[in-house]
Amino acid sequence: MKQRGGSTAAKRRAGERAAEAVADGMVVGLGTGSTAAHAIRAVGEAVDAGADVRGVPTSFQSRQLAIDAGIPLVGLDEVETVHLAIDGADQFAGGDLVKGGGAAHAREKVVDATAERFVVVADPSKAADALDHPVPVEVLPDARSLAAERVRGFGGEPTLRAAEGKDGPVVTDNGNLVLDCDFGAIDDPGGLAARLSAVPGVVEHGLFVGMADEILVGHGDGVDAKKP
Amino acid sequence: MKQRGGSTAAKRRAGERAAEAVADGMVVGLGTGSTAAHAIRAVGEAVDAGADVRGVPTSFQSRQLAIDAGIPLVGLDEVETVHLAIDGADQFAGGDLVKGGGAAHAREKVVDATAERFVVVADPSKAADALDHPVPVEVLPDARSLAAERVRGFGGEPTLRAAEGKDGPVVTDNGNLVLDCDFGAIDDPGGLAARLSAVPGVVEHGLFVGMADEILVGHGDGVDAKKP
Repeated sequence: MKQRGGSTAAKRRAGERAAEAVADGMVVGLGTGSTAAHAIRAVGEAVDAGADVRGVPTSFQSRQLAIDAGIPLVGLDEVETVHLAIDGADQFAGGDLVKGGGAAHAREKVVDATAERFVVVADPSKAADALDHPVPVEVLPDARSLAAERVRGFGGEPTLRAAEGKDGPVVTDNGNLVLDCDFGAIDDPGGLAARLSAVPGVVEHGLFVGMADEILVGHGDGVDAKKP
Repeated sequence: MKQRGGSTAAKRRAGERAAEAVADGMVVGLGTGSTAAHAIRAVGEAVDAGADVRGVPTSFQSRQLAIDAGIPLVGLDEVETVHLAIDGADQFAGGDLVKGGGAAHAREKVVDATAERFVVVADPSKAADALDHPVPVEVLPDARSLAAERVRGFGGEPTLRAAEGKDGPVVTDNGNLVLDCDFGAIDDPGGLAARLSAVPGVVEHGLFVGMADEILVGHGDGVDAKKP
């Protein structure tokens, strides 16, 4: 797994703390990324110990990790309720997040929004006073030019995300492209989120505004729990 | 082509009138549906007569019609400007539209929004005082349950569109599903459009609010041009 900053120990503490909230009978949304991966492994250990837990993966990656960890999987359309989602973030400020470094933010947002409770796991390198991480925007391939033009109109600088391991751009699990849109410091995440959502051909953007119920930040010697 | 109401003569008059606005050197967005098809055929006749016009299709269907009509095609990413888009509507009220009966509304909205000028072609059966046609909402397959729940929260009744010619649901050209969402009469199309856009996993909805520059309505003996 690729390290995107932050110590492994801090990430593991946050992930494992989040997994402690998983109780028998729960359906759990399984997030994407290096910190969520620690939560998935910890949930797997609970399953090994006999807990009746089913997982809803947020991505191809978390699906594979859950299979490896022995967590029974279930589709979003098979369950009435997702009790808890545990997911990472590329940056957080207050209760707002930027996600999508792994280009899985569309399905992550669907699962995280479906869950009764959404817990974010992070390390201190992800904290900011104001969000200023470029916002990943998944677009239909045909909408690339229009979306880039609209993003510039909102004061952002869009960059088509290039792939590694294939020529050309990253293609998402949904078959779309990603524009990483640098807005500098974002004064009004809710307003920007609404403007981005309304652009024709934007499938999903990586601003998660007001969705997190708790943010668990792993440190060198413990975990800070923040309730936005 | 399937007839969805309205006389063929009225549709042809509207489509042909719209095509009269096509001038030499233009890039033209080519809409989907039975009325837009008349415009495509008329643009093809202009090309036959020597006009230098290139078309940007809004769907698989309009692409095929344009090929049959001999219109050279061009990709949205190849052109600086789309000068004019001509497209149909399932319903219009004032300058606002419901589109997506053909499940092509995502790409239609991208092309129509890119165009410098967007002309709608319709017959009188599409006119309404207030929009009350069910709104097609294209969703990522995994987002179906969440989107349906949110739509109910907005006062709508969602129905998963069933396919004909295959078992199960309609799958769009983008690989997604369509919820036809009946809101009754829509008081505030702009507000509903914003709420639908913000739902996680909604790719595109069929409300086209404030986008049309002109609506050409074919009648038994002419064409009414409405400027919203």
